[in-house]
Amino acid sequence: MTDYTAPIQDMTFVLNELSGLPEVIARTDCQDASPDLVNAILEEAGKLASEVIAPLNRSGDQTGLTLTEQHDVIAPDGFKQAWQAYAKGGWGSLQFDPEYGGQGLPFALAIPVQEMWHAANMSWGLCPLLTQGAVEAISVNASESLKARYLPGLISGQWSGTMNLTEPQAGSDLAAITAKAVPEGDHYRISGQKIFITWGEHSMAENIIHLVLARLPDAPAGVKGISLFLVPKFLLNDDGSPGQRNDCRAISLEHKLGIHASPTCVMSYGDNDGAIGYLIGEEHRGLACMFTMMNNARLTVGLQGVSVADRAYQQARLYARDRVQGITPGLKTPGPIIHHPDVRRMLMTMRSLTEAARALAYLGCREVDMAEASQLTDGEKMRHKRRQALLTPLVKAWCTEIAQEVTSLNVQIHGGMGFIEETGAAQLYRDARILPIYEGTNGIQAMDLIGRKLVFDKGLGLSELLDDVDASLAEMHSSDQVSAAQLKRVNDSVLTLRTCSRILLNCEDSSIQNALAMDYLMMMSYVITGWQMLKAADIAGRHLTENPESDFYQAKTRTCRFYLDQVLPRYLTHAEIINNGANSTLEMDIALF
Amino acid sequence: MTDYTAPIQDMTFVLNELSGLPEVIARTDCQDASPDLVNAILEEAGKLASEVIAPLNRSGDQTGLTLTEQHDVIAPDGFKQAWQAYAKGGWGSLQFDPEYGGQGLPFALAIPVQEMWHAANMSWGLCPLLTQGAVEAISVNASESLKARYLPGLISGQWSGTMNLTEPQAGSDLAAITAKAVPEGDHYRISGQKIFITWGEHSMAENIIHLVLARLPDAPAGVKGISLFLVPKFLLNDDGSPGQRNDCRAISLEHKLGIHASPTCVMSYGDNDGAIGYLIGEEHRGLACMFTMMNNARLTVGLQGVSVADRAYQQARLYARDRVQGITPGLKTPGPIIHHPDVRRMLMTMRSLTEAARALAYLGCREVDMAEASQLTDGEKMRHKRRQALLTPLVKAWCTEIAQEVTSLNVQIHGGMGFIEETGAAQLYRDARILPIYEGTNGIQAMDLIGRKLVFDKGLGLSELLDDVDASLAEMHSSDQVSAAQLKRVNDSVLTLRTCSRILLNCEDSSIQNALAMDYLMMMSYVITGWQMLKAADIAGRHLTENPESDFYQAKTRTCRFYLDQVLPRYLTHAEIINNGANSTLEMDIALF
Repeated sequence: MTDYTAPIQDMTFVLNELSGLPEVIARTDCQDASPDLVNAILEEAGKLASEVIAPLNRSGDQTGLTLTEQHDVIAPDGFKQAWQAYAKGGWGSLQFDPEYGGQGLPFALAIPVQEMWHAANMSWGLCPLLTQGAVEAISVNASESLKARYLPGLISGQWSGTMNLTEPQAGSDLAAITAKAVPEGDHYRISGQKIFITWGEHSMAENIIHLVLARLPDAPAGVKGISLFLVPKFLLNDDGSPGQRNDCRAISLEHKLGIHASPTCVMSYGDNDGAIGYLIGEEHRGLACMFTMMNNARLTVGLQGVSVADRAYQQARLYARDRVQGITPGLKTPGPIIHHPDVRRMLMTMRSLTEAARALAYLGCREVDMAEASQLTDGEKMRHKRRQALLTPLVKAWCTEIAQEVTSLNVQIHGGMGFIEETGAAQLYRDARILPIYEGTNGIQAMDLIGRKLVFDKGLGLSELLDDVDASLAEMHSSDQVSAAQLKRVNDSVLTLRTCSRILLNCEDSSIQNALAMDYLMMMSYVITGWQMLKAADIAGRHLTENPESDFYQAKTRTCRFYLDQVLPRYLTHAEIINNGANSTLEMDIALF
Repeated sequence: MTDYTAPIQDMTFVLNELSGLPEVIARTDCQDASPDLVNAILEEAGKLASEVIAPLNRSGDQTGLTLTEQHDVIAPDGFKQAWQAYAKGGWGSLQFDPEYGGQGLPFALAIPVQEMWHAANMSWGLCPLLTQGAVEAISVNASESLKARYLPGLISGQWSGTMNLTEPQAGSDLAAITAKAVPEGDHYRISGQKIFITWGEHSMAENIIHLVLARLPDAPAGVKGISLFLVPKFLLNDDGSPGQRNDCRAISLEHKLGIHASPTCVMSYGDNDGAIGYLIGEEHRGLACMFTMMNNARLTVGLQGVSVADRAYQQARLYARDRVQGITPGLKTPGPIIHHPDVRRMLMTMRSLTEAARALAYLGCREVDMAEASQLTDGEKMRHKRRQALLTPLVKAWCTEIAQEVTSLNVQIHGGMGFIEETGAAQLYRDARILPIYEGTNGIQAMDLIGRKLVFDKGLGLSELLDDVDASLAEMHSSDQVSAAQLKRVNDSVLTLRTCSRILLNCEDSSIQNALAMDYLMMMSYVITGWQMLKAADIAGRHLTENPESDFYQAKTRTCRFYLDQVLPRYLTHAEIINNGANSTLEMDIALF
């Protein structure tokens, strides 16, 4: 298994030069986030990721998890210590409200830090991810007293959080939820079974705060009858410390393709008297509350795609440099396989997709800050909110799709060794496969993009984005780093995206729109990342004129050029598919399948 | 885990209407292969596959294999009985020489039968696959006495065969092989270690015939100093029955991502006195002998891609029809997910890719017969040999690439359940991942296509193929089943393939050719399958005028139309990449990775 080194230089480049962290800091109330502080945060997080968390990745996969007869989940060796180090370092508190123990830094800055956790160890990283989601849902929706009682423990990392949506009959369709909540004084009694609950049980933290969707006795049918409840594993004593065990437990663990060290629990609530839970937000408004956390969780799942892709790239690069096989082209002696053109093609594809995905993910995440930036007008904030809404499905779906490709290329570069579990390439490939599924399948993301982001606002958010892209392109000129042909290629891709968007907007049949939605999402992602990579080449090129020996900028410009030549052209196929329409997708009678 | 039903109707359609089995039968010495016999063979094979072999797929994956202290490999329950049923049915003898117990049927007819074994159980199917390869290598290259002693046991399925090429330092580059062979009377003493030996040890068959690449003491360096040896697990008694144990054994089993029920052995030869082996063919000509079997093995590995894709499609179709989730578009009630347009898109992609891959694989395999057809002139046979040579890398690489996509879509259609091992979708996904790696990685196939198939004969084989395609297209007209736009789309794709082929032929830099080779291979495959699917639609359309109610032809025309609208456009991206050239792939200094 390869080591992991946090790609701090690229993270800093993307943060500062592409996703405008300085602007985010200036427009929010985070002005004390100086470049030195940002750097120190990334350096320290990088150490924890590579020295403490990453070494547990392979062993965690091998050990897996045990559910004891007492319904405890035994995490792999070292996981608890890593969690404690994470809590002690205050890593779970970066972007949260100082009133509850947070550090009040931008979400945009928490993003590279989280990228590191997931790259180091996707299984372990899910515990912080879910905990952060719980903090967000409680912060935005819960009463002051619930916030005061539950946020500090979650933000400090003493406790962890979970998200309980799915039931066997209710996955993508939450309308089918049947878990029950019965009012009883100041609380509710919750009962029912939930599946696919990530880190639903463990003892790395002192308490687990479950957020559970359930129905009140008088609830209307469908999604409008679902409420959100906070159900602690241990009920709190008056002094806020964990006390009596609540009536909920893990009754089994799933045997999964990947993320073997992340417990995916079947949770049973209320086997005895009913688990005690507290309403978050209003009755019947649970889904809206859950979406508060889901939107950011979608961004961070996209980020997981960046993480696992980067880890795979790091492993492939190392192997390709080390593994001697075959005569090096142009020489007469055997040499490392990185000299072979097809290996080079695979490595450049991995590298450029990973950097493009990082650019897209950070671009989406900075909008979370900007949508609430104190220094902006309401109109400006609304515009950022639309941008965030538009980019979220792209980040979630595209970054996780490319993670499949990049982790698969890592296996391929390893040849026969890639298929052997000891190498570790197979684990990254297995782990990554969950990403297009959870937190809303990528098909759901594509429908969200077309239905709620494109059609719903009649293309306003998209027009705003593409106008910004055009303005940005107008400032760029061909140079040593970017050819006129590449510049034109990006311009053409934006024009084609506008055309395809019109086709879909004008098509009033939502079945056809949805049948083309995934191609549209992929196309838009390639076009937007093409623009970002062009911009990156342009900026890096300007740095090179001052600092022509910089390895980083040399590599960045070459990686961007490869992307524009060899990856961006993928949009052409998606555009042609949209042009051809979806009649042949939909016409076959179901009986004929 | 889903069941498996052999797709006999599509197999028969592709065999007869697309790959011209009647012509193959007429031109070879297999005239007694009547349509009734062909049908009976497919029906019987289908029963064995679905009733005996397929039910062992999931249990074999779960049980895996054990290597005992006595160096025996214990196969999962039922595997030996399935092998015995296979041997008893004469299934290993279909296409082989009647002189040694074969049935003398066309290779083209053995292909759908083999497709069934691999679809039923990829792990199990590898034992027949390797055995068939051994038969081919011995048939073509070995002396009469070796053939007489070893072929009958292999062809009858009493014995199985293996292929021992790889050593730790010699994978894609066989020049680095170091296993030794020392002459001793009428035989040789073999010593050395071989890795990745599929079914290298087991007791399903009474003997195992290893084909081993090794070097004689006086051998020149490189690939020109490698010889091929036949090394039986049990030396034969004078009466031909297995006798004394030879000095070779499995010393460990690999822990793999997939095909858990197929033993991947580290084999040690000559730990004591040296394993006794017999030279196959001439000294130092072992690689050429091994390639006799490798070419057909590459076709059958491509076929494995078709198999696992078909199994995945069958599973996804069943799940999509059964799983109720979400409101059916156009209705107000929940219904099965097959009604959702994005699920439909995934199913149609799986289905059409699988059918296209079957068409390509069978087209490649029929050339094996035609290249040796008794009724053809030498010139005609050479032409078929060129066609086979050209299509082999496409079949191996493209059919295994699409198997990744189709098995992944199966996971995706299953949603969260797809990530749970019990469902079986994950197993198909894991199993399939070896296909682009073994039997020559897909990168090697792409280099083979460019170097040995395109450049080496200056595009002759390709021109012959594309002229045949043009002639075939000239006979087709737009109709109810095929629109003028679709016809034009295929014509355009052929023109673009000609242009890209010229670009690559005119480019004299083999590094640039190799950097673009995979895109070229993928492009050519989409164009050729586009033509095949158009032809299929045309033929099916004509059947429909006579038999408008036929479900099969209805489904076939719709599937082809989907392919032409939604899959063929992928060639555009590959063409653009070739147009853009490979400078940006190759320019980055290795130190910058």
